Amino acid sequence: MTKIKIGIIGVGRIGKLHAGHLVRQPNAEVSIVSDVAVTEELRQWAAELGIPRISADYRDVLRDPDIQAVYICSSTHTHVPLIEEAAEQGKHIFCEKPVSMDYVQTERALEAVKKHGVLLQTGFNRRFDHNFKRVRDCVQSGQIGDPHLIKITSRDPAPPPADYIRVSGGLFMDMAIHDFDMARFVANSEVQEVYAQGAVLIDPAIGELGDIDTAITTLKFANGALGVIDNSRQAVYGYDQRVEVFGSAGCIQIANDHSNTAEISTKDAVFRDNPKYFFLERYEQAYADENRAFLQAIASGGQTPVDGNDALQAERIAAAAKRSLQEGRPVKLEEL
Amino acid sequence: MTKIKIGIIGVGRIGKLHAGHLVRQPNAEVSIVSDVAVTEELRQWAAELGIPRISADYRDVLRDPDIQAVYICSSTHTHVPLIEEAAEQGKHIFCEKPVSMDYVQTERALEAVKKHGVLLQTGFNRRFDHNFKRVRDCVQSGQIGDPHLIKITSRDPAPPPADYIRVSGGLFMDMAIHDFDMARFVANSEVQEVYAQGAVLIDPAIGELGDIDTAITTLKFANGALGVIDNSRQAVYGYDQRVEVFGSAGCIQIANDHSNTAEISTKDAVFRDNPKYFFLERYEQAYADENRAFLQAIASGGQTPVDGNDALQAERIAAAAKRSLQEGRPVKLEEL
Amino acid sequence: MTKIKIGIIGVGRIGKLHAGHLVRQPNAEVSIVSDVAVTEELRQWAAELGIPRISADYRDVLRDPDIQAVYICSSTHTHVPLIEEAAEQGKHIFCEKPVSMDYVQTERALEAVKKHGVLLQTGFNRRFDHNFKRVRDCVQSGQIGDPHLIKITSRDPAPPPADYIRVSGGLFMDMAIHDFDMARFVANSEVQEVYAQGAVLIDPAIGELGDIDTAITTLKFANGALGVIDNSRQAVYGYDQRVEVFGSAGCIQIANDHSNTAEISTKDAVFRDNPKYFFLERYEQAYADENRAFLQAIASGGQTPVDGNDALQAERIAAAAKRSLQEGRPVKLEEL
Amino acid sequence: MTKIKIGIIGVGRIGKLHAGHLVRQPNAEVSIVSDVAVTEELRQWAAELGIPRISADYRDVLRDPDIQAVYICSSTHTHVPLIEEAAEQGKHIFCEKPVSMDYVQTERALEAVKKHGVLLQTGFNRRFDHNFKRVRDCVQSGQIGDPHLIKITSRDPAPPPADYIRVSGGLFMDMAIHDFDMARFVANSEVQEVYAQGAVLIDPAIGELGDIDTAITTLKFANGALGVIDNSRQAVYGYDQRVEVFGSAGCIQIANDHSNTAEISTKDAVFRDNPKYFFLERYEQAYADENRAFLQAIASGGQTPVDGNDALQAERIAAAAKRSLQEGRPVKLEEL
Repeated sequence: MTKIKIGIIGVGRIGKLHAGHLVRQPNAEVSIVSDVAVTEELRQWAAELGIPRISADYRDVLRDPDIQAVYICSSTHTHVPLIEEAAEQGKHIFCEKPVSMDYVQTERALEAVKKHGVLLQTGFNRRFDHNFKRVRDCVQSGQIGDPHLIKITSRDPAPPPADYIRVSGGLFMDMAIHDFDMARFVANSEVQEVYAQGAVLIDPAIGELGDIDTAITTLKFANGALGVIDNSRQAVYGYDQRVEVFGSAGCIQIANDHSNTAEISTKDAVFRDNPKYFFLERYEQAYADENRAFLQAIASGGQTPVDGNDALQAERIAAAAKRSLQEGRPVKLEEL
Repeated sequence: MTKIKIGIIGVGRIGKLHAGHLVRQPNAEVSIVSDVAVTEELRQWAAELGIPRISADYRDVLRDPDIQAVYICSSTHTHVPLIEEAAEQGKHIFCEKPVSMDYVQTERALEAVKKHGVLLQTGFNRRFDHNFKRVRDCVQSGQIGDPHLIKITSRDPAPPPADYIRVSGGLFMDMAIHDFDMARFVANSEVQEVYAQGAVLIDPAIGELGDIDTAITTLKFANGALGVIDNSRQAVYGYDQRVEVFGSAGCIQIANDHSNTAEISTKDAVFRDNPKYFFLERYEQAYADENRAFLQAIASGGQTPVDGNDALQAERIAAAAKRSLQEGRPVKLEEL
Repeated sequence: MTKIKIGIIGVGRIGKLHAGHLVRQPNAEVSIVSDVAVTEELRQWAAELGIPRISADYRDVLRDPDIQAVYICSSTHTHVPLIEEAAEQGKHIFCEKPVSMDYVQTERALEAVKKHGVLLQTGFNRRFDHNFKRVRDCVQSGQIGDPHLIKITSRDPAPPPADYIRVSGGLFMDMAIHDFDMARFVANSEVQEVYAQGAVLIDPAIGELGDIDTAITTLKFANGALGVIDNSRQAVYGYDQRVEVFGSAGCIQIANDHSNTAEISTKDAVFRDNPKYFFLERYEQAYADENRAFLQAIASGGQTPVDGNDALQAERIAAAAKRSLQEGRPVKLEEL
Repeated sequence: MTKIKIGIIGVGRIGKLHAGHLVRQPNAEVSIVSDVAVTEELRQWAAELGIPRISADYRDVLRDPDIQAVYICSSTHTHVPLIEEAAEQGKHIFCEKPVSMDYVQTERALEAVKKHGVLLQTGFNRRFDHNFKRVRDCVQSGQIGDPHLIKITSRDPAPPPADYIRVSGGLFMDMAIHDFDMARFVANSEVQEVYAQGAVLIDPAIGELGDIDTAITTLKFANGALGVIDNSRQAVYGYDQRVEVFGSAGCIQIANDHSNTAEISTKDAVFRDNPKYFFLERYEQAYADENRAFLQAIASGGQTPVDGNDALQAERIAAAAKRSLQEGRPVKLEEL
């Protein structure tokens, strides 16, 4: 089996996560990683994973003629120029979400991808989750008929630090963007209108940074369905990730994953352990599977299962949600 | 035990339901019922229940000096004048929901009630449901902290006939009004702003009557919480009645009631029987309990657990939702 | 509607329970009750229920020519002579379980019933429970194929007082007898062999009375299926009543009933309220339904749904279980 | 990190499974595998996993001085001599279950292990399963008090082929042996007495081979608890693996694992996908974890978490169950 040679730009938490999965793939080889800060800890990590080269200059990745595919896992503001340069160099690209906080720039990146004929996959890992996939498959099969209502619950176990919030692009662009993608994925239709309500109920510091920590966002889809997403930055019981699609012939809903199925009855109550606590735990398999899918798209010369347009549409919904919140009114996507 | 003498005005489906519960109460006696159409079938029904008198004139109920309390179960447009007249006659009043489709009239009725010092209870039976009560109690206990998100799912198994839709006051006033009350009940806070989306996805005939059959309504509460209600006139799998309250210290959600707990595993799937199919079945005990509570309020001279203001507030939210849908924008209650 | 005139012999907890249900039946009238101890409290209870006569002599019940049916709810040792006398008087009979602690006497009672052509229903109320009925219906429908394994869990929330244990006939005759009947009911086959293990794990006082408080009893059925029942006198979390039937084409299992469906998630755990705590609460509807079925059998002249043979067979299994425990070996029913 | 050099004897299904997990462990290296049949397919498999050597002679594994640990995954009848020889060569040993179908031979193997001071771990992988571990931890924590009843359900999705049944040692030694170990594991006590019932309900061919396909086995534990295991060779709905421990202060039960949490409601029923279908799928993580535990025991010089005595005790219970079935009576372990 020939191995696809891969370079990773940016090896923070998410870059390391992908590297960890890729080194276990029989048809992939992580040849080089780059990061703005090449620390001793990073060198050791690379050595343990058997990654032979490490550089402080992303150009060492992009200009290596042996590299077929790059993972862009650096800060969001670097994504668009890196995509453009990688496309020019003929590399296939896996880019983390969002591609950009300004969807106009994302459009620019997609043009470069198109022009150079490379593949682009974006990091909407939840599409590969066993539960969400089951919802999508069910809707696609027609078993529950035409979708009427799409309901998504998406709550983090704890808010990120203020430093992260500051550069995050805000709750809609940073957190709910996964849910906007999920809404399109399970409804199998485009969003046409958005109305967003937001509140600061968890930490006033988040409000002082101009962001919100709690939101309810309603959607209208092209196929006539209505949707609603509720977000919170802090669900004390763990990562709460559920979807429900109600249709003309039935309803599908998914519950959270738990680390075991035990139910304990005592004189006080019947209880079970909390849901899995964080996204790394909950979506571990989904991350592995999105990487496998990317490698397969390269190997087979086919389409990536989540492409640049998927990133673009989710970013446009996030932009509409942000404007809706600011202006206190529903916003049509065509207004953007 | 002295028995409270009761008269019932309007003995259609809901009037009969109350009568059936009241005749089994040791401290109540249904002395008379009235209906615009006294049929042979009705006479027989009254005889079987041991109700001694039946009249085509509601005044026979209201002017009987022995009657202490009246149930107003006639058409909605008759509620306000009947409340006024009953209050004048010093009768305690149980009135079905909504008191009026025009909340200004409801205010008039409440003035009459106040002036004559009688008790008024309104028919928000779901407050007495074992599941919804548990949600309310949990929130009140502080166990899940301050409420941040209130989510209500309320879907009927099948739409009512066109003739009913025509005079129903529309989805918000007829169906969602229970959910507006439930939102106030579990959030323990008043609604300040409403944004409603509606669609006709089930039956075009409903749209032709100027109504909708599917809706998502979002709410802002005085305590800062956000809320969302989703409604459908047709859930093919049965009556779907769920509530979730998410707060700073946890979350409570209730599942539907089923007629048994059996789970059957076959080579195809693991399945269970559908939820209880309709409101009479699901809320049977709740109807009995709301009547017991009304009798107790009379006997003890205390407050009714669901009063006229509760009816008024739910009607105001319904009016705001209707306007929001018409004008395509969020509507503040204070605008009304 | 002509009312079936009923007398009740023995109005302790269970006699009162039946009386309470019967007075609410439109086609029944409780004309008289008798009890060895006619207290003021009993007189008051009868007055409240509108029962006109009360006597210290059961013969006032049996010899009243107007009485069509009697409920025998007195101590177990009185059942057989009362059945014989009632049958002689031509009364239809509802008798609480067990008919006798000595199945040979039960056979004698059944002969009297047969000879006088009266109806006999025995108090296996669980057959009327919504969950257990669903299991039976599922097995009967063939949906899970031929039964291979029958599993019954039956645990009380707390042991009865020592005075009760002393005269109870022991765990098998007093408590597990319901499960022996349930085993026959859901397996739709007769038990041929029994092996019982017992232990005193809850209260040494129970052991000092010669009884056990914990048991596992295995069964072999005529149709080849195997069965197992586990019993405990004390499940601290409430009444634990579950059945599972595993067959060639699938499996059905029922979970306990809870008083609500709420699930509460906190930082510590996800929990729900305990199962219903006791048999009066769990089987409330089943008691009502067994009485309705008895009245209907009388009215229609048909068979009772649980007859004397059902009592006899359960008692024989209990006797075999007792002997198995004593002798430490499997016991065939034909050995008895 | 120095890598533990490992050889694997027997690379059928289970040997390959372990190899697949071991090659992904950073602290292990599979240096050699042996099998009686070295096919081209096997060579290719080894090449893909990067296993450098492959031999038809197990002695090439046992006599390689670089090998620190061996996995014995060959036919059961070879286990004891291989353990003896491996121990003599000073290799640490992982041996699949059962060590032997004759527990007297297992005792011989354990003596060799003891004499040569090597580590022995036996393949009771279920002890590493997330659900079963949770049960064990719960019991150990004292949360449910003293165990009174241990209930294990263990059903395969489909019977193995006749050729396998013939050499399997029978249902108790081949299949229920996992459950006998689980019973000891969760009860934290030794089994003293066994009574086994068996039947041929699935396939007469199994009976013709002198085996059974359905069984209920009851246990008495040294700590006074009672236990019951039900086994079937064919649960059409998938792999059914559940445990319940009932104690003086509560109860813990585990449900099956499913491949997703989706619940689909249609007009016919509410259903979810079947449990995971087979042991490779259900216990995938448990197999990985038992290997990690073995490597860690070697690295740290500590005890293995499942040792030779665990194998011996489970085999003794299986032998007692077999005798009980043959003689139709309870059998004490001390009788063996």
